[in-house]
Amino acid sequence: MIGVATCARLDLMGHFGPHFAELAPELDLRPPERIDRPEEVEFMITFEPEDAAFVPYPNLRAVFSVGAGTDAIERCPSLPPGLPVHRVQLPDQAAQMAGFSAFHVLWHHRRMAEYVQDQQAQLWQRRLGGFSPRARRIGILGYGHMGRGIARGLLALDYPVSAYSRSLPAVPDEGVTHFGAGALDDFLAQSDILINVLPLTTETKGLIGADFLAKLPAGAALIHLGRGTQVDEAALINALDRGHLSGASLDVFETEPLPSGHPLWSHPKVLITPHVASVPEPADVVRSIRQQVQGLRAA
Amino acid sequence: MIGVATCARLDLMGHFGPHFAELAPELDLRPPERIDRPEEVEFMITFEPEDAAFVPYPNLRAVFSVGAGTDAIERCPSLPPGLPVHRVQLPDQAAQMAGFSAFHVLWHHRRMAEYVQDQQAQLWQRRLGGFSPRARRIGILGYGHMGRGIARGLLALDYPVSAYSRSLPAVPDEGVTHFGAGALDDFLAQSDILINVLPLTTETKGLIGADFLAKLPAGAALIHLGRGTQVDEAALINALDRGHLSGASLDVFETEPLPSGHPLWSHPKVLITPHVASVPEPADVVRSIRQQVQGLRAA
Repeated sequence: MIGVATCARLDLMGHFGPHFAELAPELDLRPPERIDRPEEVEFMITFEPEDAAFVPYPNLRAVFSVGAGTDAIERCPSLPPGLPVHRVQLPDQAAQMAGFSAFHVLWHHRRMAEYVQDQQAQLWQRRLGGFSPRARRIGILGYGHMGRGIARGLLALDYPVSAYSRSLPAVPDEGVTHFGAGALDDFLAQSDILINVLPLTTETKGLIGADFLAKLPAGAALIHLGRGTQVDEAALINALDRGHLSGASLDVFETEPLPSGHPLWSHPKVLITPHVASVPEPADVVRSIRQQVQGLRAA
Repeated sequence: MIGVATCARLDLMGHFGPHFAELAPELDLRPPERIDRPEEVEFMITFEPEDAAFVPYPNLRAVFSVGAGTDAIERCPSLPPGLPVHRVQLPDQAAQMAGFSAFHVLWHHRRMAEYVQDQQAQLWQRRLGGFSPRARRIGILGYGHMGRGIARGLLALDYPVSAYSRSLPAVPDEGVTHFGAGALDDFLAQSDILINVLPLTTETKGLIGADFLAKLPAGAALIHLGRGTQVDEAALINALDRGHLSGASLDVFETEPLPSGHPLWSHPKVLITPHVASVPEPADVVRSIRQQVQGLRAA
């Protein structure tokens, strides 16, 4: 039996239940209120579990996140120590992230915010020069499943791409300049547009603060697709206001939903999206979890 | 000696003169008022020449466009019949077009216009589902230098890509579904997002009218990067207003600059840019023309 841990922000049963019923009926997915024998629950599916979510289930074998992130599960106080937490890792998630990243790279590089404003003023005003992709060095901060997909897309669009990851890949990816542990400052100093897709860990929490941003080249842009608490939002606003950064695209925030009245909403150099960089199709998520469960049961 | 034909819209001497002086001083580039012996002018450089631009020069060997299009030169009444007209064809132009196209594909597919509006209203409103690139079939209308670059970029972002060209390539490009002469209707019927990069010819002028647009799937989007007179703007507005098209990105127009007060400026489903999809770096253009002149002189 598989249980669904109640989740503050997402209606998991509503969102995934029908797809489990159709694609994986044998998994017997149940919300907490329909679990009569909690000792028979082998697996839990969740994203942001409530604090006591795992308490009733003594015989869990694993937990599945319905997304790419597992940070909210890892910090749940009732998560039994040592219990494996699996993420959903689909080619499509990286593809979505790659397209979304490419959009924001072009948004900043090609000055699209200014054209959107010009259109409102019915103003025909060409901006010329510097439009070659060679004119912007892209830095990808975090080089796992997502980062590699982003690099592939931007290389095909002829942008120079570098990537930072704590451990370097055994074989460098063709066209990518790799930076490893100890080289973060060098990496930042040559990132005209920085794309953050780091996972949230104790090391990355608060990483992107005043000192970090000051290491980017003057006029750099930040595309932030990781987790909200990695960025010091006050420091970011300060770097934008004093002109060190030319712009920012933000998909994740310290507090989500971003509260009405927050200064980021109305900042002229900021483009805000509501945590939609990569939203896997529920059916794909269900197929992936089904496959993983079958693998674990067969093991 | 190389002459510069006066050009209504662009200050060619101002834009390219310094780069010729630096990178190709031997070419002796001169504006009309400084050409004392017109019979010695071998080559002309222009983009949109005035009607009588070529009259004074009896010994021209070729004309160079500073851009990818040669249509305005070809229709110049004083162009000597049979005189070769060369375009600038740089990898960078295709790369710029590829990035610009990817931007607009994502703009429509990921509903970015709605997020821009939501930000103005400080509204956190997630739109979920259908964000996989597999959910949008991209059709590239015109498959030369530009079209191939666009395809390469979008394939790397995992979009399904088809291409229409009158003559099919000898070897199909990997991942691209090709449509040739006679298959335009089939091509349009499966293009959820249509990107037009056709050159302007007598066949393509006015091509994109009411009948053409009706052949696109309901809810399709148009990204128009070719030439303004290829599109019947009234028919386009009608297709948007009755909901057959979900949106359009327009970079070129029947009349440029697009006149203030034109209904396209304020259309809620239209994103307008002022003919900036691909703006080659002047230095690259000068290097390319220099190389072509050397080739012609050596021949």
